[in-house]
Amino acid sequence: MATAPISSVSNPRIKNVVRLSTNRRHREREQRTIVEGSREVRRCLDAGVVPAEVYICPELTAAEDQDVAHRLATQFAIRNSHYATVTPDVFAKIAVRGDSGGLLLVIPYTQTALNDLPLSANPFLVVVEGAEKPGNVGAILRTADAAGVDGLILCAGGTDLHNPNVIRASLGTRFTVPVAEAPTGAVIAWLKARGIASVAATPDATAIYTATDLTGPLAIVTGSEAEGLGAEWLAAADATVTIPMYGVADSLNLATSTALLLYEVVRQRGVGR
Amino acid sequence: MATAPISSVSNPRIKNVVRLSTNRRHREREQRTIVEGSREVRRCLDAGVVPAEVYICPELTAAEDQDVAHRLATQFAIRNSHYATVTPDVFAKIAVRGDSGGLLLVIPYTQTALNDLPLSANPFLVVVEGAEKPGNVGAILRTADAAGVDGLILCAGGTDLHNPNVIRASLGTRFTVPVAEAPTGAVIAWLKARGIASVAATPDATAIYTATDLTGPLAIVTGSEAEGLGAEWLAAADATVTIPMYGVADSLNLATSTALLLYEVVRQRGVGR
Repeated sequence: MATAPISSVSNPRIKNVVRLSTNRRHREREQRTIVEGSREVRRCLDAGVVPAEVYICPELTAAEDQDVAHRLATQFAIRNSHYATVTPDVFAKIAVRGDSGGLLLVIPYTQTALNDLPLSANPFLVVVEGAEKPGNVGAILRTADAAGVDGLILCAGGTDLHNPNVIRASLGTRFTVPVAEAPTGAVIAWLKARGIASVAATPDATAIYTATDLTGPLAIVTGSEAEGLGAEWLAAADATVTIPMYGVADSLNLATSTALLLYEVVRQRGVGR
Repeated sequence: MATAPISSVSNPRIKNVVRLSTNRRHREREQRTIVEGSREVRRCLDAGVVPAEVYICPELTAAEDQDVAHRLATQFAIRNSHYATVTPDVFAKIAVRGDSGGLLLVIPYTQTALNDLPLSANPFLVVVEGAEKPGNVGAILRTADAAGVDGLILCAGGTDLHNPNVIRASLGTRFTVPVAEAPTGAVIAWLKARGIASVAATPDATAIYTATDLTGPLAIVTGSEAEGLGAEWLAAADATVTIPMYGVADSLNLATSTALLLYEVVRQRGVGR
């Protein structure tokens, strides 16, 4: 505990953290990613994730985060986790964002298998196909958490769930919302086998989303920023819905349209469902 | 027209464009900002904005943007606008984003005075106080365009409306939605004088937004990412509403919560209002 802080950005562990941040293939080889920021680190630990490595910069750690810094120092330094303090210069090198408050973890990939997604009595899922922007996936996780979905399913490529910017943009709700990744065909079959209706959003639908019954077991399905939903989803969906638009722009942001659909389910099912 | 392209990033005009991009005080001194990207440039020109300067990189201009490039070359090169072609290296230096398609304008600040905001028969406005993130203001503009609001009012500081990232994140709807900036007190008085009810979003409200009548003349009022709405708005608002949340996170993204409120107005007023 009293060892000197890492002060060199050439330290091999530090260089590896930077690679985990910036290089998807390296993340996938190592099956590890990074978590930074107070809320994110707290929600990660609260979800029971055991970090592989812990980096703390005491000079950057806020007074209100001393509890979590102490927890990391005492709980994990004595276990298998590698624990180190680092200088502000080194922390600036490993933190993706400037406002991470001196707390950074390297964690193993965590993910839920499709068959392990917990389903409530009246299932409520969100499926996103081919989302390209980590910020959008993070924003969708934040809304999915607030709307109380059972889980998020990502399908057909796009950004990887383990991108550190997904975790940051989600404010750590990445660890509170169960998330599965699976190919489109597998998701369609899985939903059908469970009697969960898929409601696909597309500008070409004739039904307005607010005039469509969304009270039963369902999965809201939205598609990538550029392409929308693919033909496989549009053919398989139990219903297609559209969001009316009155302006000059031809589409809403993916995270925005997904939020409107999720909260329409909340409205129809009633508060305190 | 046949003059050689600007090939040096040390060219004084190029250096000035970079300053306009990155330095708010410089923008405010010059009362000019930049617009880049195909959709953004088109919507800017369609709104009747006359650029002060035009920069085109022919090598980066897509086939489907030849019309707008030609329009810029012929319509503005012969007027008072400064027109220049630039090399790809120079364009990379002046474009805030990588995907700007070789089109960039320097435009004068454009803005609507509060008293000049056009109001429909049943006014529908959105007021945002103290938004800090240009990306959020841009996202709100995009949703405001789609929801068909009469206009957006920004009050009490935060990001400046003329930040190039507001324009980019809005996909150019910055030029299709009338926008005014005014102090909070002036906006409150202006709304009251016109019989427009202010509906303020706050986690402390007891009324759920979907159970509140939003069919009359109104302004949806939302507050900054970190602080929410200030005391002045909460005291002056004709109604306060909250969005129910069922997760561990304590707030929705500002652009998301604003979108939910705007589209609840759309739902209650009915399609084809």
